[in-house]
Parts: sequence; C-alpha cells; structure tokens
Amino acid sequence: MKGNGLLVVISGPAGAGKGTVVRELLKNGDLEVSVSATTRAPRAGEEDGVHYHFLTREQFIDMKEHDGFLEYAEYCGNFYGSPKKQAEEWMAEGKDVILEIEVQGCQKIKAKNPDCVSIFIMPPSMEVLEKRLRGRGTETEDVIVRRMARAREEIALAKDYDYIVVNGPIEECVADVLSVLRAEKLRADRFREEIL
Amino acid sequence: MKGNGLLVVISGPAGAGKGTVVRELLKNGDLEVSVSATTRAPRAGEEDGVHYHFLTREQFIDMKEHDGFLEYAEYCGNFYGSPKKQAEEWMAEGKDVILEIEVQGCQKIKAKNPDCVSIFIMPPSMEVLEKRLRGRGTETEDVIVRRMARAREEIALAKDYDYIVVNGPIEECVADVLSVLRAEKLRADRFREEIL
Repeated sequence: MKGNGLLVVISGPAGAGKGTVVRELLKNGDLEVSVSATTRAPRAGEEDGVHYHFLTREQFIDMKEHDGFLEYAEYCGNFYGSPKKQAEEWMAEGKDVILEIEVQGCQKIKAKNPDCVSIFIMPPSMEVLEKRLRGRGTETEDVIVRRMARAREEIALAKDYDYIVVNGPIEECVADVLSVLRAEKLRADRFREEIL
Repeated sequence: MKGNGLLVVISGPAGAGKGTVVRELLKNGDLEVSVSATTRAPRAGEEDGVHYHFLTREQFIDMKEHDGFLEYAEYCGNFYGSPKKQAEEWMAEGKDVILEIEVQGCQKIKAKNPDCVSIFIMPPSMEVLEKRLRGRGTETEDVIVRRMARAREEIALAKDYDYIVVNGPIEECVADVLSVLRAEKLRADRFREEIL
C-alpha cells in the first residue's frame, strides 16, 4: 500500500445504516469516499462524479484492461467498479479511503489488497433492520421480503470481515469505526519509523 | 478467553513512559492492572499487594505447580510471575487486564493466550529516551549506558508485538491505546452476538 492512508471496505445489508455512518465519518476523520464507476444509465437525480462516475461500456473495458479498478463486477448486464487511481492518490496523501461495497466486492479487494481493513456494519437485530427497511415507506412487501432474505445471506458472511460494528446509536458506531482506523495505523506490521 | 475483557500485555524500555501511560489508562478505561508475584524481598516503600504480591519460594512453587500463573520467570535467583486467577476474574467481569511485563514474558503469554493483545510503548527517539533516563537524576553513567543498550535490544523486538504506540504527547499515546482496546473488541473473530 502506498502512503499511510488505509483502504477501508465498508459493507452491510441495506437498512443497516452504512450511508449514515459514512456521512458521519466524513465529518470526523481525515478520509474520503471512493465514487464507483458504472456503465448503467443515470437515474433521476444522480449526478456524474457524485453518485457514480458514469462511463460507456468502451470506457469501462478500457480502464479495466489498464488495471484501473481495485475491483469490478458485472450485475444485470452493467459493469460496476472502484477506480484505483484516485484512491491511491488519496492514500499517498495520508487519507483513509472508504469503499462502500457489496460482500462479493470485499472478497475481491482483500485478495488483491491484503492490507485493506474491512468493516461489516451490523444492524442491532433483524427486527430493527426490518423496521428500518419498512420505515422508508417506499417499498412493496415483495421488495421487503427479498431485502430481508438478502440481508440474512450477507450477515452470514460478516465473519469474513476484519471487524463487525453494530450500528445501534449512531455516535457509538461512528466512534467504533474511528477507533478501528486509529488502531489499524498502530499495528506493528504497518510501523515504518526506525528509531534505532 | 473467558468473559469479554481483554488480556493486554504492555512492554517497552525503561524510560519509555509505560508507568505513566498505565496510570492514565486506569483513569479513563474500564480496566485493571495485574500485580505480579515475586519471591524477592520487599524494598523500602514497597507494599504487599500493591507493588508486588510477596510470596515465599514454597508458596510460589506451589502456585506454579497448580497452573496459577499466566507466565513466570526466574531472574537472579528470584521468581516473578503474573497470577492467573485474579486476571481471569476481572476478564469475566468484562474488564481489560493490563500486564506490564518484559519482552520475554510477552512471548510466553502469547504462546499460552493467543487472544491477548500486545502493545509496545516506543519512545519518540533514542535521544528523548536518554534524556528521560538521565532526567531522573538518580542513576550513575554506567547504569544509563546499560539501560540504553538494553533499550536497543528491546526496541529491536517491537515488531513481534501486535501494536506499536509511540509515547510522544501522553494524551495522544493514551488515546491510541484506548483506540486499540476499543477496536480489538470489534474484531470479527471476537464477535459473539448472533442476530440471525
């Protein structure tokens, strides 16, 4: 890994509150969030460079062939990937870079970047998760049932992460993640100063 | 490991400021410091149960034969050891237990307690370390030279610890150690809650 910044993978089921945690982290720490690239069409309200970097299929494939992604995947005929260059620049500046990605993406990132720190954001209980998903009030019963099933699959893989942080009170959860980032920088295998 | 408390080994050369760090930790965290047992005679001002548990040779050997120590060693004809029972009780109550021990003791603890967390307190530089050792004003030149040589040997082994914390400003160092303890409790391999 270049520089002193950490590559931080954050995953967790929809409704666990990843987005809120990441927004709060940005206020408190010296860190940046990686914006994913995708070949899918922008949805209403999505801005290029903010929600995603919107690329053509040709652009994406060209970047992929030039080793331009930390990880990438194809879902439903569209490519999604985490651009490598910006992340490496931030890390070289000493900033931690957060990738908010799926469980499958985490495994790929770890395989190529063993130094990365992976954090699974866990809901306090399945009841709370369901309440949060329903609270949005925008989904059909069918969508809720599918999301809960998917959440169960994802939670079953939480043990593969380095850390599991329960998102109960948001302040506690954010302080937990900040402690993880601070502690990881103190790991002996990352220590670079030589005083002898 | 029983309970949720961590077994925390803290080492570092004389003059690195371990004692100050541990005193500050006690003010801030839910933790306890293990008091070592020894067969050596008390020195002026040393209280039984505070500085050491002073035992007869027979008492020490009996405890050792009943697996009563987390680790023990013999120096200059005297035994020194970290009593196991009190530490396990504290951990069962959820308290972190600090063992302030020598580098050799750390290796023994880790061999028998792979879950323990080891932290090496590093001076900011060899110059600062020498200044701190001389600042006490109580040691002869010969003792200073021997302590600096020993410090170099110990610092060379710092990489065997889980974490290396540089003791520059004391508040930063204490906050570093508290982050390590908080983060370690979030490690996926220590996670016990099952929400599925």
